[in-house]
Amino acid sequence: MTVANPWTTLESTLQYDNPWIRVVEHRVLTPKQTPGIYGTVHFKHLATGVLPIDAEGCTYLVGQYRYVLNAYSWEMPEGGGKPGEPALASVQRELLEETGFSAANWLQLLSVHLSNSVSDELATCFLAWDLAPGAPCPDDGEQLVVRRLPFRDVARMVWSGEISDVMTVTTVQRLELMLHRGIAPAAVAQAIGPLS
Amino acid sequence: MTVANPWTTLESTLQYDNPWIRVVEHRVLTPKQTPGIYGTVHFKHLATGVLPIDAEGCTYLVGQYRYVLNAYSWEMPEGGGKPGEPALASVQRELLEETGFSAANWLQLLSVHLSNSVSDELATCFLAWDLAPGAPCPDDGEQLVVRRLPFRDVARMVWSGEISDVMTVTTVQRLELMLHRGIAPAAVAQAIGPLS
Repeated sequence: MTVANPWTTLESTLQYDNPWIRVVEHRVLTPKQTPGIYGTVHFKHLATGVLPIDAEGCTYLVGQYRYVLNAYSWEMPEGGGKPGEPALASVQRELLEETGFSAANWLQLLSVHLSNSVSDELATCFLAWDLAPGAPCPDDGEQLVVRRLPFRDVARMVWSGEISDVMTVTTVQRLELMLHRGIAPAAVAQAIGPLS
Repeated sequence: MTVANPWTTLESTLQYDNPWIRVVEHRVLTPKQTPGIYGTVHFKHLATGVLPIDAEGCTYLVGQYRYVLNAYSWEMPEGGGKPGEPALASVQRELLEETGFSAANWLQLLSVHLSNSVSDELATCFLAWDLAPGAPCPDDGEQLVVRRLPFRDVARMVWSGEISDVMTVTTVQRLELMLHRGIAPAAVAQAIGPLS
């Protein structure tokens, strides 16, 4: 279905800009033609994430202190692509930087909008397997701890709410559904084994 | 595990404020003690969403033009809580406003951080069943279309990527997993029937 944009933008004013986000306030007419404002946050980098699965059905979580939440968070390896960089290249770099692993097999699991009332942030998430170890090299802002855990245990952490990062939650759930449906890559399904 | 915040905030400057978000730039020392800036977006409202399931196993999607994405989007009923308002009260109001339905049974399915590198936005998502119809009353900014669809079809739209809103994606995935595991509420499982 194609629908014309029912919003009218009368004027847009830059409010804040840094290397990661640009905040703009728009004077608008709403779909009902009433005047209003709309503050938008443009993300300059594509968000990417990867669930790496090793030959024993384990995955690797990254623990880090999230500045914005003022809380510690366990998540799959995630990062921001460089402008124009394909999602796959970006996520391969992140996996290497954060865990030291490279992977021979990659499958895109989903592409989702994270916060579509305010931002255009798009996240693309992958499954990776056939892992080869190397040396991690986290960047300045990151003080990372990497944990190896059976995928089964990570699925439980998603279920219980212990993992709250939505990219990790939706990617873990996606793989779990693929396993239930019998459509996960054979090597991954075999490594993980029965879910319960 | 309790970990002390490894970031140091030297100075915080308000950059933008509207009724929905507050943007602040912080001068920081990163966990590696290097100087930097961090721009954060605080959300003033709790995001809530609900997957309503009727006696025939159908759910209700809301279609609307998303200003920030410049695109039309099909999603479960979603909205923002008022400050201090419990998530359940907020989502009950949203369901009523957007679809006209009230529901006798509610179950919280998940609570997730949507974009934790930049914002503190938290989304709490529910399942609702035992629906009673009424008259919808969307607010000014919304020009909504409501579609009734079998849950099975909506799960397919999530699978194919036709639905990209992450709150809808994770909530539909969660109900599908509950059905696979045999732990969905009996009335919901019976209404939806076999998934494939």
